[in-house]
Amino acid sequence: MTQLQRPFNFSAGPAALPEEVLQTAAAEMLDWHGSGLGVMEMSHRGAEFIAIYEKAERDLRTLLAVPSDYRILFMQGGGIGENAIVPLNLSRGAAVDFVLTGSWSQKSHKEAGKYAHSQIAASAEASGFTAIPDPATWQVNQKAAYLHICSNETIHGVEFQELPDLKALGADIPLVIDCSSHIASRTIDWSRVGLAFAGAQKNLGPAGLTIVIVREDLIGHALPICPSAFNYELVAKNDSMYNTPPTWGIYVAGLVFDWVLRQQEGSLTGLAAIEARNIRQASRLYDFLDASSFYQNRVQPAARSRMNIPFFLTDESRNAEFLAGAKARGLLQLKGHKSVGGMRASLYNAMSDAGVEALIAYLQEFEKTSA
Amino acid sequence: MTQLQRPFNFSAGPAALPEEVLQTAAAEMLDWHGSGLGVMEMSHRGAEFIAIYEKAERDLRTLLAVPSDYRILFMQGGGIGENAIVPLNLSRGAAVDFVLTGSWSQKSHKEAGKYAHSQIAASAEASGFTAIPDPATWQVNQKAAYLHICSNETIHGVEFQELPDLKALGADIPLVIDCSSHIASRTIDWSRVGLAFAGAQKNLGPAGLTIVIVREDLIGHALPICPSAFNYELVAKNDSMYNTPPTWGIYVAGLVFDWVLRQQEGSLTGLAAIEARNIRQASRLYDFLDASSFYQNRVQPAARSRMNIPFFLTDESRNAEFLAGAKARGLLQLKGHKSVGGMRASLYNAMSDAGVEALIAYLQEFEKTSA
Repeated sequence: MTQLQRPFNFSAGPAALPEEVLQTAAAEMLDWHGSGLGVMEMSHRGAEFIAIYEKAERDLRTLLAVPSDYRILFMQGGGIGENAIVPLNLSRGAAVDFVLTGSWSQKSHKEAGKYAHSQIAASAEASGFTAIPDPATWQVNQKAAYLHICSNETIHGVEFQELPDLKALGADIPLVIDCSSHIASRTIDWSRVGLAFAGAQKNLGPAGLTIVIVREDLIGHALPICPSAFNYELVAKNDSMYNTPPTWGIYVAGLVFDWVLRQQEGSLTGLAAIEARNIRQASRLYDFLDASSFYQNRVQPAARSRMNIPFFLTDESRNAEFLAGAKARGLLQLKGHKSVGGMRASLYNAMSDAGVEALIAYLQEFEKTSA
Repeated sequence: MTQLQRPFNFSAGPAALPEEVLQTAAAEMLDWHGSGLGVMEMSHRGAEFIAIYEKAERDLRTLLAVPSDYRILFMQGGGIGENAIVPLNLSRGAAVDFVLTGSWSQKSHKEAGKYAHSQIAASAEASGFTAIPDPATWQVNQKAAYLHICSNETIHGVEFQELPDLKALGADIPLVIDCSSHIASRTIDWSRVGLAFAGAQKNLGPAGLTIVIVREDLIGHALPICPSAFNYELVAKNDSMYNTPPTWGIYVAGLVFDWVLRQQEGSLTGLAAIEARNIRQASRLYDFLDASSFYQNRVQPAARSRMNIPFFLTDESRNAEFLAGAKARGLLQLKGHKSVGGMRASLYNAMSDAGVEALIAYLQEFEKTSA
């Protein structure tokens, strides 16, 4: 199949997938590996789908170096679903702590209040969510069931460069991370994490798949009102097949895991290669924005996301013109989230260096037209 | 693309899709309608996906003749998720009623007990779930928040040929139907239904999409503990985009809706054509089974499902041999559910007459080898 250059897709999610993954998914649509069945047509309990599921689980475990005492669950409901599902499973009648660094941690904090006393250990709201509060200043409740952070705020473009060490802060409680928008873009220090969850529709592809990685000792304590479909114990005991899992999403995410593991950058492979590429691409764009007086990113450098880069034109009356010109040049889905405004370039794993260079070339070109 | 004859797929779900739908999904994988984006790569809030969503919603409304005072919601969590989500949204602190006709209504009854006093208005358990209790004998609680039935029991192969008229039974309460495994195979009498839900992975295709069709006056009464992602009011107000919907599933289901609307059988079109085809295929197989002393279906004729046809060999020691021979002839996924045993042929909308004839030819052939 010949294919013209595809446009560059900067969507914050659902987002660009590697072209190779899409081609494989298309080629196997009517017949997966000689089975005569398309993946969407397979019983989730049949040998063919079990093979797909087991490879996806194994590859994700390898990719993120998930320890053997953590379970990987393939679920439904997305990040907003998990905002309820986490406290339903982990709160055990105790209080829960949150650090607010943007829209997503705010939403999680609010939803948890339905099931537990939901407290704020620290908040960056006063900064307009352009910073991450220094962990040394957090007011951590040592009796909380867990402390929740959003390790990458998709809307505000704020990312934890290092996960907090709650033990060092004097609190021996599990850390919960919502890593939806940067999962599989960098390593996770599991010694600091009790549970990680991620909607798949950013870095892994298909909306409707939610990945939960949870330490085994945190499983089995759900509140009686937790719906069975979202009870980690039932999901874990049934290898994510207590109910019919989102089979197509698991398949496509599995293709993405396989693709990430095969990436190379110089002597680096897999996640290390992806991370080096992400750092290079994000630095290139931030450096350009910082050197310009025409564009602006407002996030403190230490808190800037590698994945989601919001920026503003100095003259915001030209936003529509900017977006139309971008689209005409094959630079798609650059509009910022409505709650923040401006622009946002999401540089997920599937973004190429060429895409970032094409964006910067357009940023330069557009700035010149205003001279 | 040339394609050899595909095998015939009798899976109970996830299940066969029309070949035309799979071909379209493959062809559009990298570029939907010239947008330069694959469907999985589109922001759910962009013009491209909104067009896909709106056509799917419109076509489903046409297909099932859904009245204007019913909302169609595209959700996640499947039938097992809805077993909790329905009482979380509709029970309002009142009791809820169930009619037990098989495994699925049993599961629904049990799960609802977490949120409401969950009662049994009638049960066919004594018959081994081979019949549907006469509605005239149901003990309907007139003060229940609703009465729930599974209008087609996938595992036991039992189907309501007519929906009960609760008003005629003296109870002016909403009827809830779990129609997961026969949605879009026959008409629904909405005058008798308050809410219908269906996991999409039987007749519509992609696992991970759940369709809820609910009368507007039943929306807005969720219990405070209902997770926001599964609160019908929030989902409805946000046109199924309170959280990121399962975009690929909506797209594929939309292709299926479009395919159903274009089906023809003689002078019949759309759902009427599909229904005529389903009746013809199911009758052909039941007639064959009934005429045989080698095979047996145990469901009372009046309660037999057009979609899921469980059957048994008289000599069950030959089950493995039967299944191996079937697979060798391209007749796939005929093994019965583990809780019932034996075989099960699911004849969903995508099944062709040729598939049913091929199955019957094999049934005849296999019987002869035992003479």
